[in-house]
Amino acid sequence: MSTVRIPEVVPSPKEDCETLRKAFVGWGTDEKAVIRVLGQRNASQRKKIRETYEELYNETLVHSLRSELSGDFLKAVTLWTYDPPERDARLINEGLKAWRKDVKHLQVIVEVACANTPHHLIAVRQAYCSLFDCSLEEDIASNSNVAVPVRKLLLGLVTSYRFDKEVVDTNVAKLEAEHLHNAIKKKELDHDHVVWILGTRNFFQLRATFASYKQEYSTSIDEDIVNCGKGDLQALLRIAILCIQCPERHFAEVIRTSVLGLGTDEDSLTRAIVSRAELDMTKVKFQYAQMYKSSVEDAVIGDTSGDYKNFLLTLLGKSI
Amino acid sequence: MSTVRIPEVVPSPKEDCETLRKAFVGWGTDEKAVIRVLGQRNASQRKKIRETYEELYNETLVHSLRSELSGDFLKAVTLWTYDPPERDARLINEGLKAWRKDVKHLQVIVEVACANTPHHLIAVRQAYCSLFDCSLEEDIASNSNVAVPVRKLLLGLVTSYRFDKEVVDTNVAKLEAEHLHNAIKKKELDHDHVVWILGTRNFFQLRATFASYKQEYSTSIDEDIVNCGKGDLQALLRIAILCIQCPERHFAEVIRTSVLGLGTDEDSLTRAIVSRAELDMTKVKFQYAQMYKSSVEDAVIGDTSGDYKNFLLTLLGKSI
Repeated sequence: MSTVRIPEVVPSPKEDCETLRKAFVGWGTDEKAVIRVLGQRNASQRKKIRETYEELYNETLVHSLRSELSGDFLKAVTLWTYDPPERDARLINEGLKAWRKDVKHLQVIVEVACANTPHHLIAVRQAYCSLFDCSLEEDIASNSNVAVPVRKLLLGLVTSYRFDKEVVDTNVAKLEAEHLHNAIKKKELDHDHVVWILGTRNFFQLRATFASYKQEYSTSIDEDIVNCGKGDLQALLRIAILCIQCPERHFAEVIRTSVLGLGTDEDSLTRAIVSRAELDMTKVKFQYAQMYKSSVEDAVIGDTSGDYKNFLLTLLGKSI
Repeated sequence: MSTVRIPEVVPSPKEDCETLRKAFVGWGTDEKAVIRVLGQRNASQRKKIRETYEELYNETLVHSLRSELSGDFLKAVTLWTYDPPERDARLINEGLKAWRKDVKHLQVIVEVACANTPHHLIAVRQAYCSLFDCSLEEDIASNSNVAVPVRKLLLGLVTSYRFDKEVVDTNVAKLEAEHLHNAIKKKELDHDHVVWILGTRNFFQLRATFASYKQEYSTSIDEDIVNCGKGDLQALLRIAILCIQCPERHFAEVIRTSVLGLGTDEDSLTRAIVSRAELDMTKVKFQYAQMYKSSVEDAVIGDTSGDYKNFLLTLLGKSI
């Protein structure tokens, strides 16, 4: 369900590195070559390119990219070049450092925890320790800029190592839908039950619980949360539920919000496309078309330009 | 710091399997051979023996052990035979299922979380998912036999993936010692700060925090917790602190308690020796001698007998 187009005959990592190096040397940069090479390789191919590049030229590929590219194009290409767990660890760290009052800085934490496999989340936590000399969870727990109930929710989500197969108990679904409903009714969104249920149950079980909630109480759990108010906790809880229930719908929303109105939120647009291109971008595109009667490609074309635009379109599978 | 004696010339896994098989066949079992082979191999050697045994005889080694051995001897040998993460996942699961009112059933969770590397803890959680079709954390969170504050502490501890190098911030140590002291003073032992500090900080940082606590408030944090009362939460919190501060002291205490008075707590004695033999049993023995002016070996000799005794003594490094 990846939209990344890998050519039928893939050059060797060494050949790719030589193409990249040639694109960097001398005056100016051949951005199209960078897009053509990196934008059309999967994660394991990019890993080999990174390793080979460092061996050949004694500097990291990201370092070279930084001295050659700039702006949103640079940001998108470097994020795409990192190993996915390293990319997510960096995005989370940046969000935690930037956080003041915009919930989007924390939303990446919820996305990484709830819209990825348990195995990926552990890899992100390992990468975080290696990169930042501390654990992800201590950076959340000790961040006094973030309200305690929000930290409690985030900690519950990022520290999970969920069972990853489809084992569903309908009695548990019914009982836990009731626990969730009671907490939401009392507006106790950081109740232990809420955090424990969302932070420990497997994704299939949680989807059954949300379905049971809707069946039992007529409204869906995310609507009930929206009715609780407009705080950060509500917003992040709703994102967690969306990511668990239907990640492609959440990322379609992220892309839509990033291009709506005046100006563009390039960070969110980049994050959504770079992090989902290899996972479920086909589904995100389909969902986007269903929800907004237009295409993700049109959103990118309408709101971006130049190499940045071309790079995002390449990840979306367009020949440029 | 392992006390397990690996012979200078180690037979091949196939030879070891043949010795074991010979010990099993016919009337009776050659327990001495079982002890000699399994009790003198390290974890990776035992792993190869398990794999080779299954290939050769089309049944698992643990299955054969179960049909040949019995009682405490069987229990100790099978625990030793499992891969260490699988062993700990099984011990925790057993504790959670057995739990009614004896804190020792939950104490193994704290030991696994606080007296092992972060990497081992993740491996235990992976093994738990594979063995029991659910995550360790959901089995804790949904266990309504366990009081909510105790579940909160246990969840904080088992879900950690701590940074594992020595990075210590003395200002943080001082500040968090104060947070801990305030919570203990108010007898709020399940306060978010307590759970977050103990569940997220690296072990070196926590040791600095405990030292700062002692320096600032004259009594040590574990004494202050004991003064809070005799509940399960106090007991488990104290064990967590001991395991973080000085695991060998904790396991010396476990061994001592298991043999004190009338009767023996074989499960605790086995757990302590089997789980620490390859890690820090040399230190545990030294600590035990310091604290109780007698030896771990004498404790074993005084309270156990037969093959069980011989097996434990073998793990402690004695030739039998």
